[in-house]
Amino acid sequence: MGIDPGLTRCGLSVVKTGRGRSLKPVAVGVARTPSGAPLTERLLTLSDAVGEWMDDYEPDVVAIERVFERGEVSTVMHTAHAVGVLVLAAARRGLEVHMYTPSEVKKAITGNGRADKAQMTSMITRILGLGEAPKPADAADALALAVCHAWRAPFLAATGGPDNPAATPAQRRLAEARQKAKRTPNAWKTAQRTIPARGGGPR
Amino acid sequence: MGIDPGLTRCGLSVVKTGRGRSLKPVAVGVARTPSGAPLTERLLTLSDAVGEWMDDYEPDVVAIERVFERGEVSTVMHTAHAVGVLVLAAARRGLEVHMYTPSEVKKAITGNGRADKAQMTSMITRILGLGEAPKPADAADALALAVCHAWRAPFLAATGGPDNPAATPAQRRLAEARQKAKRTPNAWKTAQRTIPARGGGPR
Repeated sequence: MGIDPGLTRCGLSVVKTGRGRSLKPVAVGVARTPSGAPLTERLLTLSDAVGEWMDDYEPDVVAIERVFERGEVSTVMHTAHAVGVLVLAAARRGLEVHMYTPSEVKKAITGNGRADKAQMTSMITRILGLGEAPKPADAADALALAVCHAWRAPFLAATGGPDNPAATPAQRRLAEARQKAKRTPNAWKTAQRTIPARGGGPR
Repeated sequence: MGIDPGLTRCGLSVVKTGRGRSLKPVAVGVARTPSGAPLTERLLTLSDAVGEWMDDYEPDVVAIERVFERGEVSTVMHTAHAVGVLVLAAARRGLEVHMYTPSEVKKAITGNGRADKAQMTSMITRILGLGEAPKPADAADALALAVCHAWRAPFLAATGGPDNPAATPAQRRLAEARQKAKRTPNAWKTAQRTIPARGGGPR
């Protein structure tokens, strides 16, 4: 599962890994919260939305964009608050979380850490064999994060990186919690759905 | 309830309002998470700790320090993630959250927005009639936030500020949720406990 974190718009996506580098899109959407509502309500709405996705799609792992101190202060802080809530939703379900910077994602997808939006969208559309480019940008970014992790995970595992389930006691505990939390392990209930499967989508 | 947010150390406090500006300390402590643990585990631990405090003490309202982009980037981001989780814990229990900047807290307690640590600690000790200065700093800061809100709340209500329960439909919904979430409304089960009542405390 790939998440482009945000409080006003949060991109959510699920992809399924196949043989080698092959990937199938499962779902993509955007969770929105009204910018005029109190922070309490907005975080509650976001938490419920991402929790529902996690329960519906039962991902193996969650990839989230790492937030930097760039741009307008209150937007950055709101996004960082959202990340806390998103990571907590994963933790409650025993899911591992991996964070990637925007340039790591760009490099993984296009080979160039400074690729522009158009290049990224075009690559994501091709990699996932989509009929049309994913919209809005948050949805496309969420797919890019999922693809980035799927392609980097085998490398990380081979080098004993954070993806190795036996790497640390903490990760073993997480893996155990995950097994407990999963009602139907490895069941990709919705693998046949086409994009956009639910939530946001183009508007 | 006053919260000095943090991931490594999070100050927690509860005070009870009396007549006029009189206040009684109810509890103070610090929730800690190990800096070497994965973010998932740390946020889970913090969420459970603050949730337990909220369930035990059933506060009417929560005051949290507003995070700014100051200091080391990853610390600021960790604190901002923690705030997301803390606000969510309040929201799940239908509690209103108010945020105050450090200088607002200092001004409310000492009359001076640039008061130093020693002045703040001395005032908090006197205001709450404590036998000794609260330690560590995070615990003292949490008490200062609770006092700041308790003293500012009547003013905010009088001016139709965010404390007025009828101010907006969103706040009415929160108040309703709060009534539903509370098992024993307005019961300060632990009002007689003395400081340090539980959790951290001076070490």
